[in-house]
Amino acid sequence: MLGNTFGRMFRITTVGESYGIGEGSGLSVIVDGVPPGLKLSDDLIQEELDKRRPGVGKLNSPRKETDKCHIFAGMGQDGVTTGAPVGIIIYNVDTQKIHVDQYRQYKDLCRPGHATYGFYKKYGEAQDWCGAGRASGRETVGRVAGGAIAKQILALEGIELIAFTVQCMDIIAKEMTFEEALENYRKNEINCPDMETAEKMEKRVLEIKDEGETAGGVIELRIKGVPAGLGEPVFDKLSALLGHALLSIGAVKGIEFGAGFKVANMKGSENNDEFADKNGRIGFKTNNSGGLLGGISTGDEIVMRLAIKPTPTVSVRQDSVNMQTMQIEELNPITRRDPTLLGRIYAVAEAMAAITIVDALMMARGYDNVCRTENRWREI
Amino acid sequence: MLGNTFGRMFRITTVGESYGIGEGSGLSVIVDGVPPGLKLSDDLIQEELDKRRPGVGKLNSPRKETDKCHIFAGMGQDGVTTGAPVGIIIYNVDTQKIHVDQYRQYKDLCRPGHATYGFYKKYGEAQDWCGAGRASGRETVGRVAGGAIAKQILALEGIELIAFTVQCMDIIAKEMTFEEALENYRKNEINCPDMETAEKMEKRVLEIKDEGETAGGVIELRIKGVPAGLGEPVFDKLSALLGHALLSIGAVKGIEFGAGFKVANMKGSENNDEFADKNGRIGFKTNNSGGLLGGISTGDEIVMRLAIKPTPTVSVRQDSVNMQTMQIEELNPITRRDPTLLGRIYAVAEAMAAITIVDALMMARGYDNVCRTENRWREI
Amino acid sequence: MLGNTFGRMFRITTVGESYGIGEGSGLSVIVDGVPPGLKLSDDLIQEELDKRRPGVGKLNSPRKETDKCHIFAGMGQDGVTTGAPVGIIIYNVDTQKIHVDQYRQYKDLCRPGHATYGFYKKYGEAQDWCGAGRASGRETVGRVAGGAIAKQILALEGIELIAFTVQCMDIIAKEMTFEEALENYRKNEINCPDMETAEKMEKRVLEIKDEGETAGGVIELRIKGVPAGLGEPVFDKLSALLGHALLSIGAVKGIEFGAGFKVANMKGSENNDEFADKNGRIGFKTNNSGGLLGGISTGDEIVMRLAIKPTPTVSVRQDSVNMQTMQIEELNPITRRDPTLLGRIYAVAEAMAAITIVDALMMARGYDNVCRTENRWREI
Amino acid sequence: MLGNTFGRMFRITTVGESYGIGEGSGLSVIVDGVPPGLKLSDDLIQEELDKRRPGVGKLNSPRKETDKCHIFAGMGQDGVTTGAPVGIIIYNVDTQKIHVDQYRQYKDLCRPGHATYGFYKKYGEAQDWCGAGRASGRETVGRVAGGAIAKQILALEGIELIAFTVQCMDIIAKEMTFEEALENYRKNEINCPDMETAEKMEKRVLEIKDEGETAGGVIELRIKGVPAGLGEPVFDKLSALLGHALLSIGAVKGIEFGAGFKVANMKGSENNDEFADKNGRIGFKTNNSGGLLGGISTGDEIVMRLAIKPTPTVSVRQDSVNMQTMQIEELNPITRRDPTLLGRIYAVAEAMAAITIVDALMMARGYDNVCRTENRWREI
Repeated sequence: MLGNTFGRMFRITTVGESYGIGEGSGLSVIVDGVPPGLKLSDDLIQEELDKRRPGVGKLNSPRKETDKCHIFAGMGQDGVTTGAPVGIIIYNVDTQKIHVDQYRQYKDLCRPGHATYGFYKKYGEAQDWCGAGRASGRETVGRVAGGAIAKQILALEGIELIAFTVQCMDIIAKEMTFEEALENYRKNEINCPDMETAEKMEKRVLEIKDEGETAGGVIELRIKGVPAGLGEPVFDKLSALLGHALLSIGAVKGIEFGAGFKVANMKGSENNDEFADKNGRIGFKTNNSGGLLGGISTGDEIVMRLAIKPTPTVSVRQDSVNMQTMQIEELNPITRRDPTLLGRIYAVAEAMAAITIVDALMMARGYDNVCRTENRWREI
Repeated sequence: MLGNTFGRMFRITTVGESYGIGEGSGLSVIVDGVPPGLKLSDDLIQEELDKRRPGVGKLNSPRKETDKCHIFAGMGQDGVTTGAPVGIIIYNVDTQKIHVDQYRQYKDLCRPGHATYGFYKKYGEAQDWCGAGRASGRETVGRVAGGAIAKQILALEGIELIAFTVQCMDIIAKEMTFEEALENYRKNEINCPDMETAEKMEKRVLEIKDEGETAGGVIELRIKGVPAGLGEPVFDKLSALLGHALLSIGAVKGIEFGAGFKVANMKGSENNDEFADKNGRIGFKTNNSGGLLGGISTGDEIVMRLAIKPTPTVSVRQDSVNMQTMQIEELNPITRRDPTLLGRIYAVAEAMAAITIVDALMMARGYDNVCRTENRWREI
Repeated sequence: MLGNTFGRMFRITTVGESYGIGEGSGLSVIVDGVPPGLKLSDDLIQEELDKRRPGVGKLNSPRKETDKCHIFAGMGQDGVTTGAPVGIIIYNVDTQKIHVDQYRQYKDLCRPGHATYGFYKKYGEAQDWCGAGRASGRETVGRVAGGAIAKQILALEGIELIAFTVQCMDIIAKEMTFEEALENYRKNEINCPDMETAEKMEKRVLEIKDEGETAGGVIELRIKGVPAGLGEPVFDKLSALLGHALLSIGAVKGIEFGAGFKVANMKGSENNDEFADKNGRIGFKTNNSGGLLGGISTGDEIVMRLAIKPTPTVSVRQDSVNMQTMQIEELNPITRRDPTLLGRIYAVAEAMAAITIVDALMMARGYDNVCRTENRWREI
Repeated sequence: MLGNTFGRMFRITTVGESYGIGEGSGLSVIVDGVPPGLKLSDDLIQEELDKRRPGVGKLNSPRKETDKCHIFAGMGQDGVTTGAPVGIIIYNVDTQKIHVDQYRQYKDLCRPGHATYGFYKKYGEAQDWCGAGRASGRETVGRVAGGAIAKQILALEGIELIAFTVQCMDIIAKEMTFEEALENYRKNEINCPDMETAEKMEKRVLEIKDEGETAGGVIELRIKGVPAGLGEPVFDKLSALLGHALLSIGAVKGIEFGAGFKVANMKGSENNDEFADKNGRIGFKTNNSGGLLGGISTGDEIVMRLAIKPTPTVSVRQDSVNMQTMQIEELNPITRRDPTLLGRIYAVAEAMAAITIVDALMMARGYDNVCRTENRWREI
């Protein structure tokens, strides 16, 4: 219950699950705070959704989720937004009765590493035992659809953002600049722009997959072009809001900014980023702060890393609990799964970060002064 | 932008307009905070939606809005809610191209009594000039769908609520108890339970309709069974929240509680409701407070009256402004309209009041202790 | 609990009661969202607080509340705000032990017309039975202090607002323009700018006071200079927010906008405000809408009227309930009271309206674009 | 601006800075959502405040902040809370004119590692250049005072929480159970319950201090007794809210839950916590999840680690920027500082976590069903 809305001035509300009832079931997102006059189309949203689409490569689960989106509200007759909230719906297609029956069979068994047990304690027997309900990774399609609009706005503001894999198991990519990472962004299935390392990562994931296992990793998220002075002091620091946004992704077990946990072994003068003249503009010699000081943006790149846990669904016997009997019971291996989330989850991280930055911009400038399009007659 | 979400613990978010783009356009509502284990169905929602449906009687506009609703998310496999947000969509059907073209023709002319001028100043040229967009009365279908769920919850809590017409132009109904009003609730098109007066009201509306005019009136809203002690002191008094909820309906130009504006000519001891023994329970001799003191419920009936303005669309020549030229220009009479809103708007008032009361109950008790259904394994 | 915060971008949080414990007890307000660079001083806040100060005239209670305020946070070294929240505290002085003992004596008796009964049902025996706690009229000093800052901001934006008495019992003031009302604003104790009628009203109040009774009335609130296009459609209409703000004042039992309840007996074309050329600017022939259409500002004056109930404390025997015995019990007359709230409550109404308008402006423009003062180095 | 309020049902709003103007300047917190009937006293709050008090040991800065708190509102005559918001004020004492003059001298120089530059870009020249204003560590006294109340409530709910140092520079404490950590909690200045390692850490900090430098580290936070099922799915996962709360502390540059960043190199079955029978109750074999799955509590201990950066104030020459000239300029060493934040910041982390857990409990159960005290007459 609740918790399905995110953002203050730019705000998404999501709903829906994979195994909804009836023909027209689906997932939907309402995006409030979209400025009037913005060009939007189903295709533009679809492009982002396709980033997190499973079933297309060797590293992904064999499910087919076509995730075709449709903007059903908020567009004017002339192909631009009106200032009304935008509604997007993605209908379910892969919801055969056979799957529901499979889930029903095991509904009293709580899988290790999944949210099921907590959900039963929270919602009781009525909780959605089919396909993980709102705890399913598929819940994130609404976020990605909303993030697609946020990215449109950021582009008009000159702000770019990308997320990519920097670690998979014990294999670590080399450090890259924003431009280097951008060059090879989404060039391979694991989305690691260090092409050589990517190959090793993919090989490692396939080995692990063959063991019936899954692999963890680290995603890096970079945001370029954020003006200095963004965020609120005290409780709504930009770092706190980004943390809230990104830790709301189920598989994220940690987040760090700039030097992150390395600051633990740094002295003050090592960690402080000294000011420097950057071609006539004020900048910094280093970026240990990750572009955020006192939670407020410094104007430098915002850099974050996210710890991504291995998919909890594995083909290995595990001790589960049976809610009916409250006894420990062995759970049989499950075969349909993603061997790693790294090649898909970056799209969700990008979406949440994009929404957070647009929201912060609107808090500062008002929604009418972010991405102000050519639009006569406005006075406010 | 924004403002499309209402409620704190029980919360609706609405989206959509009558003349959306494409085949699948429609209006939708996401209801967050629905307890797990609640029985819901399309039919149950539909029943409420039908209350505000136009096009069925002599007092209504000839538009055909079938308003068929569909729950597309939030239901479990067993026909009860899961605790996830509930998503409802109502597809548009009466959106022929011919109407869009008519609206386009007059899009630069701001109609007196409508929100158009303010919308142009707020959103500029990109605002939705077609069918009034989010300022259309049709926006309220999402509210009514959400209110249908709230009413289900109230019923389980033993709380009843009805709204009905007590004044239409200069014709005023006699005072009625809750039970008297309930007996003849929705027995006539103008929804006035004083059957004789209703007849006079309907006759008056038809005369006014024939003049090309529209009629105002007053709606009374009664809520029975609210426990004493509900609402928060200071800014979120139950009266303030009900005021917020009901004044968010476009045509409502005033609200009063209990004796309302009559208190202006009352002395303290006349207005104070003395305590009384009511069959062994604490009650009150009178109910001038309308069931709310210091904004907190007293346990007596909550009584409110709403001033409903006449539909602004009239078949009379009026001075408008042309946004292109910024010149005053005559607006031709418009023929398709509701001669009065009284026979439909009560459904919206009921919905908003129901949502507000459920929200206040959940604030006090937590969502898990409102309408707690049989639902094993819950601990929270 | 909760409900002590109001506003989204410009936000006040209040705390405190008249009979707090210990030497340093008092009432306080934290005002968040104050732009940097605004000139503020204790004196400026005090000026507003003095408007609602009791104990100075024949129409007021003999209590002495000096209400001296002190800004204790949020000011920079140079006498202007810094952008940090502003903290204001008003220490209690008139809290002699004798009063506490008097209140203790009657703490189980719920006075008719007061919030006590609901508070006991909500908070139980632990509720603040001394001086009405947070349900006391004195709670409003924090609002007025916060409103004083809002008014400073409105003044810089060219927006003026005043509230004044238009009815007291059966005596009704003549209609006045904003300028006429402003000319005699606060020229008499009852704050009715129709000077002749004011005299009659005051005479009537004194008669009623002699009977041991109190008098109700109506306050009118006018806001001039609000730009067209302010407010959000749907749930956060400017009318809904103003309604929320003003109905959160304990004694307000009704609110109406423009023609208000008179719309009930108006035809569409009578109620619609036709557009008109006003010295080369777009305006309206009439202002039945009260400056708000579809809840969005039209650019015309915002006009509201509030029904103010008579002070519930009267010197007349009334039936009360004793919480210990749950029996009906006679309550003795109480002598210390305001014979009417009209001469003080307008200050609270002005404060709440001012806060609401500033908040709406900041939602539209962002806090950085409202009352943007000379302030170098800002980029956001 | 804004961002000074945290929490939904249990909510703190803070205000104030170290170098406020005038005699009565100070820091304050308003705590809304405190249940009626809770015993509170200045002493109880003071105990928590003393945890973060500087100036008492060799590892702390020589500033004297006595931080004497005073509850000025929200208490009833009988020594328990009334359900009204609680107001606490902490007056400034160490605000001699000499310090203000020192700060004024360097006000245009932005110190590396501090929030100053971002604040100037956000608030402009009017920002509080004295003692870091709201970006000062001293801002956290309001949080700790509010947290003291939250801890009282948690104690009544059987929930315990502690934070302690597990790493300082390259020195890492051994792993400890909750009970082991509790036994030596706050037994040394660096607050590391591994007593031997603590000695080494303190020695290391003193060496670093002698170099004019400061030291980073890692804090671990453990919460015991949280029931399974707490938190909301999707955006308001308990992990996301805890992340928001803890990343709002200025010096925190990273947070991880359970296995945290170690999950990057874990296979699914290694990371999954299998269910186990724990003396007849359902539990887990391991706690890699840190007590949170899908963001919902599992009933196991909640375990978090926070990366704490070294104090940015160092006695080493650094390149700064002068806002007046926008030129790079050398900043002279500063002598007054904390050589590490580890011995103080844990109190702030505990406070924020305690507030978050109480807030989540109240969301689930309503404020009236958390720590429900003996309190007659309540119905809601």
